[in-house]
Amino acid sequence: MIKVGIIGASGYTGAELARILCNHPEVEISVATSRQYAGHPISDIFQNLKGKINIICENLPVDELCQRADIFFTAVPHKTAMDLVPVLLAAGKKVIDLSADFRLRNVEVYEQWYQPHSSSQLLQEAVYGLPELYRQDIAGCRLVANPGCYPTSIILGLAPLLKAGAIQPQTIIADSKSGTSGAGRTALTGTLFCEVHDGFRPYKVGRTHRHTPEIEQELSELAGQPVNVTFTPHLLPIARGILSTVYASLTPGFDIKDIYKLYHEQYAAEPFIRLLEEDVFPATQFVRGSNFCDISFKIDPATQRIIIMSAIDNIVKGASGQAVQNMNIMCGLTETTGLGIVPLFP
Amino acid sequence: MIKVGIIGASGYTGAELARILCNHPEVEISVATSRQYAGHPISDIFQNLKGKINIICENLPVDELCQRADIFFTAVPHKTAMDLVPVLLAAGKKVIDLSADFRLRNVEVYEQWYQPHSSSQLLQEAVYGLPELYRQDIAGCRLVANPGCYPTSIILGLAPLLKAGAIQPQTIIADSKSGTSGAGRTALTGTLFCEVHDGFRPYKVGRTHRHTPEIEQELSELAGQPVNVTFTPHLLPIARGILSTVYASLTPGFDIKDIYKLYHEQYAAEPFIRLLEEDVFPATQFVRGSNFCDISFKIDPATQRIIIMSAIDNIVKGASGQAVQNMNIMCGLTETTGLGIVPLFP
Amino acid sequence: MIKVGIIGASGYTGAELARILCNHPEVEISVATSRQYAGHPISDIFQNLKGKINIICENLPVDELCQRADIFFTAVPHKTAMDLVPVLLAAGKKVIDLSADFRLRNVEVYEQWYQPHSSSQLLQEAVYGLPELYRQDIAGCRLVANPGCYPTSIILGLAPLLKAGAIQPQTIIADSKSGTSGAGRTALTGTLFCEVHDGFRPYKVGRTHRHTPEIEQELSELAGQPVNVTFTPHLLPIARGILSTVYASLTPGFDIKDIYKLYHEQYAAEPFIRLLEEDVFPATQFVRGSNFCDISFKIDPATQRIIIMSAIDNIVKGASGQAVQNMNIMCGLTETTGLGIVPLFP
Amino acid sequence: MIKVGIIGASGYTGAELARILCNHPEVEISVATSRQYAGHPISDIFQNLKGKINIICENLPVDELCQRADIFFTAVPHKTAMDLVPVLLAAGKKVIDLSADFRLRNVEVYEQWYQPHSSSQLLQEAVYGLPELYRQDIAGCRLVANPGCYPTSIILGLAPLLKAGAIQPQTIIADSKSGTSGAGRTALTGTLFCEVHDGFRPYKVGRTHRHTPEIEQELSELAGQPVNVTFTPHLLPIARGILSTVYASLTPGFDIKDIYKLYHEQYAAEPFIRLLEEDVFPATQFVRGSNFCDISFKIDPATQRIIIMSAIDNIVKGASGQAVQNMNIMCGLTETTGLGIVPLFP
Repeated sequence: MIKVGIIGASGYTGAELARILCNHPEVEISVATSRQYAGHPISDIFQNLKGKINIICENLPVDELCQRADIFFTAVPHKTAMDLVPVLLAAGKKVIDLSADFRLRNVEVYEQWYQPHSSSQLLQEAVYGLPELYRQDIAGCRLVANPGCYPTSIILGLAPLLKAGAIQPQTIIADSKSGTSGAGRTALTGTLFCEVHDGFRPYKVGRTHRHTPEIEQELSELAGQPVNVTFTPHLLPIARGILSTVYASLTPGFDIKDIYKLYHEQYAAEPFIRLLEEDVFPATQFVRGSNFCDISFKIDPATQRIIIMSAIDNIVKGASGQAVQNMNIMCGLTETTGLGIVPLFP
Repeated sequence: MIKVGIIGASGYTGAELARILCNHPEVEISVATSRQYAGHPISDIFQNLKGKINIICENLPVDELCQRADIFFTAVPHKTAMDLVPVLLAAGKKVIDLSADFRLRNVEVYEQWYQPHSSSQLLQEAVYGLPELYRQDIAGCRLVANPGCYPTSIILGLAPLLKAGAIQPQTIIADSKSGTSGAGRTALTGTLFCEVHDGFRPYKVGRTHRHTPEIEQELSELAGQPVNVTFTPHLLPIARGILSTVYASLTPGFDIKDIYKLYHEQYAAEPFIRLLEEDVFPATQFVRGSNFCDISFKIDPATQRIIIMSAIDNIVKGASGQAVQNMNIMCGLTETTGLGIVPLFP
Repeated sequence: MIKVGIIGASGYTGAELARILCNHPEVEISVATSRQYAGHPISDIFQNLKGKINIICENLPVDELCQRADIFFTAVPHKTAMDLVPVLLAAGKKVIDLSADFRLRNVEVYEQWYQPHSSSQLLQEAVYGLPELYRQDIAGCRLVANPGCYPTSIILGLAPLLKAGAIQPQTIIADSKSGTSGAGRTALTGTLFCEVHDGFRPYKVGRTHRHTPEIEQELSELAGQPVNVTFTPHLLPIARGILSTVYASLTPGFDIKDIYKLYHEQYAAEPFIRLLEEDVFPATQFVRGSNFCDISFKIDPATQRIIIMSAIDNIVKGASGQAVQNMNIMCGLTETTGLGIVPLFP
Repeated sequence: MIKVGIIGASGYTGAELARILCNHPEVEISVATSRQYAGHPISDIFQNLKGKINIICENLPVDELCQRADIFFTAVPHKTAMDLVPVLLAAGKKVIDLSADFRLRNVEVYEQWYQPHSSSQLLQEAVYGLPELYRQDIAGCRLVANPGCYPTSIILGLAPLLKAGAIQPQTIIADSKSGTSGAGRTALTGTLFCEVHDGFRPYKVGRTHRHTPEIEQELSELAGQPVNVTFTPHLLPIARGILSTVYASLTPGFDIKDIYKLYHEQYAAEPFIRLLEEDVFPATQFVRGSNFCDISFKIDPATQRIIIMSAIDNIVKGASGQAVQNMNIMCGLTETTGLGIVPLFP
């Protein structure tokens, strides 16, 4: 059994790691940390886990922490992660970091959107943990930067098109809608039930959301040229799920058959991508609780724009599920191990 | 007291007319029809109306119906409306039609998206009932085609920009999200609680939703040139509300100050348009139950795209409230009479 | 115009007072206070109020506050109210206190459930503001203790039965379910969207909820004997609404006809009580946003228990609407003024 | 691999059987039937199942059906089941019937609540499929009557108390609240999103819900005397989950320690019962998607009533999960096989 540590077990992504890993046949959660809930069983914080996992949250000095597991998930806020990760790596551990700290390869871009970076030497080494694009690199690395939830949904939706030059990169608009779990478990007025329920609203509109540079970095890489994307996040009155509706102008010469072929070639063998049939569209409720990313698209004949739609569970494929998928790859396990959870509907 | 008739009182828009009109000081609901619920008090169908309105639904021949009111709201499906409206007009009545039958001025376009039109002679006469744009025409007409819910949110959002040439018409993309009441009260599997709740999905993607030609007719009118728009509707797990996020490329030469000025000139005096301050965005929960349309916008500096956001209650400003606003204008009443309802939050 | 002050305008009950009062024809909100949001328009805190009320929140010393209105609503937490109310009264103002501080007439009971009381001399003077039971007393008083939300729903449901001796007081069980707005607008983990949404749970079970003594005080008064009630509150994933399902054993000799008569006699003339027909049951969605209390009942023939069901909007009839109803009575206005809001459904 | 058949695969319980069984290591779904969707893959009806199960729904004559599996789940309406089950049994198959047709042992009671019974000869043979009470009988039988959802939650909550005589049977009141999936997938106005969302209501109050005789049969069995229970079902605006709050008067002589001991003795070894700690209460969101039944209780000291609370997922432990648990027992498999799904929260 591989010993895994969850650093930051009292947030929704930490709890989700516990939910997935407690049924994983090859690993054992050997340590889980939480400052706020040190001394409490994780199943007291997340009553759903009762009877499935008995671990007690601890608040440990990092050197002691290093001795307690072989591989670590850092489910902590950005800035906290950048100080912790180098110590874990120095102790010979593998790390999957769920924060934003190692996702941007350009330190200047990072510091423009966040704050000074204390471990920028690791930015080139960290592998962007989107297995469908970077599986080989993930297999051999010791530090995975687990992608953001919005970026996962947008990049997976666009990758086959950008790689083939089938769309005009400067025309990309991503209109994304996320469930409220993406805002975390910190008590804030804005995410109270009464403020979110039975409502819908955009936020951080117009190049102000911190996932923007991450999306642009990856889309630029795929396109082979700098790409600016207009990205608008919205808050849905649901717990889990992201649905991205992405617009782009087709490159002249590409038709619907070409597009199908591109998606098929890229994704037909992918265990967690489900390409939907024509005129079947993704919905967050059909990926709920699972590691699937559902994708479909449609062409607007009058404008020759393509509309790509992708749906994920933001805390599974958009966070903890993808992190476990990365762990499986890093540890040489079958990539789908422990991730066979069927989406829960209704 | 003006006598008003509600034809089709057992759907959500019919019930909403009753909710608004029962507190309207200048009118009296003199007749309400329903085939399915003839003989039943409307407050048996909609228990919220108990104690506020005592009218009993009837199923009357149209000639008898004509004698029962001065002005009629036809809250019936398209196709039913086109046969009914001419009879009401011939009897000298005024009509506000909430169906799609008189919204499109070009009969060929109508027949391409719907079915043959039996009253196409009225298409030129009918006034598109968006008071913020066509107030004068509404005042003098006998037939108002009450706008669709999605079109209302999109047209109001874009009007100041298109009239001034501030955006490039061929770049418009409207990503709209609607509450489930827009789907009506007919029992269908797709709108069952368990299918919609805690989920989110696009539908009728890529030039297949019937509101497309209505949106394009009005945007073309405003732009003074033919406009094709990419319009994507989505289904929200809320009862009421539409939020449209609309994208367009700015015309070079227009800056943020110009844009503010355009919106201010167009809407500052409008009683039902609320222009939000910079970086405050609309949300469906803040217009719930009211006739307000909240609008704000933001410019993406990297792409020089403008993102316009507008929120309405789809069955108030998007249907029955706007219909009452039209009635007020047609009857020479103060436009806001009976429409002072404060949005219900939380 | 009567000048009214809202003390504590940034909570849900404060905002609800503003929503109701801004359409009230006889009053003007002359002052609204909030420590946290002093200097901010209330419509910045509650975006729904934009365009309906322009008042700016202030943080004023109490002596200055006294000069700004004729009648005050104290929508502040218990303990804060008990210090504030005597000062307002001493300045000759009328007060409707929405906290729990003046609801219990017995100071020992109060101090057992809350903390020491600094103004216990007012407990006998304060009138319990349930107009359907204490209208005369309210008319002449200067301090109304506005009832709690759960107690309102339970007491109104049981009053006709207890007064007539139709049920056995020692058998009363009240199983109540409340929307989340009852928990207030303070940011707490337990009322985050993700914790409440799509779920349901009891809380403060078994004589631990502070509304218990308030319920028992009033039921004892009605029964003419001490009554202990088993009261179980539950948290509903809705914003507004309380539904209480109350059980009691019928007194032998009373049958269904007697019961109907008792309810009819007590409530037929009440403007805000709606007695439902046989086999029609109340639902929170049919009173949403209104001051109505819907009541119906059913007898279980096998056990001779009566099941009484009542529904209110917890922040209208259960708080701010009832407070305005009390204000109308205290000020000699028509009791229903400003309270004609139709329930919002769907 | 055991071949299992799902008869009635297009309802929510049928889909839930598919969700659970597709990850079950010892069985293979060899046939799934649906009249309405014959010829369609089940993953077209339930898009969540795509990629997890490829079976196509069929509409087969019953004799052909018999040849296609070893054990059948009949997830069809009552009345349909009573004609089908005898044929399956005659063909030597084992059957787990999810309808109400074989739950009541007394044919007269059945016919009073439902309609004439065509297979009453099987009523004595059928075993009531509550493994925690009837595990031995289930192991050896060929026909299990899978319990109703409400009864499961109520009976499991009361069993330890009734068996020990710790409560007075004639005082039992069960106030139950269910998610909307319990109403099935048939399109009805009453279960439309807009009718259920953001609302809450009781229904079938006062001895009119068909689960009443089932509850009373089992409670009477446990109590060793005839028991009448007052049972009130309510409809929650959630998809999955039942929370029953059950009240009863303690038998004098029993104290809190005795009660803990009774629950512990009965349930400590049960894999799907989670007894919660003192002052921790069950919630539907913590059992969502799992086969757990969470139970806790509290004593009201003033009335010596005990309040028992139990939570299940109505389509797992309340239907399909319990059916699979029964299948495991009937087939000699480990009882928990395939049922290790962790509750999904948030």
